[in-house]
Amino acid sequence: MRAEILDKFGKQVRDARLQRGLSQEELAEKAELHRTYIGMIERGEKNITLINIGKIAKALAIAIDELLKDIN
Amino acid sequence: MRAEILDKFGKQVRDARLQRGLSQEELAEKAELHRTYIGMIERGEKNITLINIGKIAKALAIAIDELLKDIN
Repeated sequence: MRAEILDKFGKQVRDARLQRGLSQEELAEKAELHRTYIGMIERGEKNITLINIGKIAKALAIAIDELLKDIN
Repeated sequence: MRAEILDKFGKQVRDARLQRGLSQEELAEKAELHRTYIGMIERGEKNITLINIGKIAKALAIAIDELLKDIN
């Protein structure tokens, strides 16, 4: 599954995660998602659902619309 | 599949669609999605994916983050 929108979202998640000094493992634990899933999201390999977007945003303590800024 | 985040998103899609005077059918056609799928999204019955969020936002001519404002 390759799509520009997924690549852009993955980069936003990665940037926000690194800004908060979190490893993929730590983010996965906070978001109650699997570490490999976080890796796939960051590489744009997964067409993430809205519920999981919500979990990741909450774990990063960032608003969903902030996490999706300039993703169009 | 019931979740507050899906209900909120469904309402935002519905409001934006009605503001633009579009029927579910017309939005579905523009977004290249099925009409019943649009109905399910607006009722919060579907855990929509990011690619389909992108399709609906584009069809409504609205930024994705705008469509997801205050959805946390």
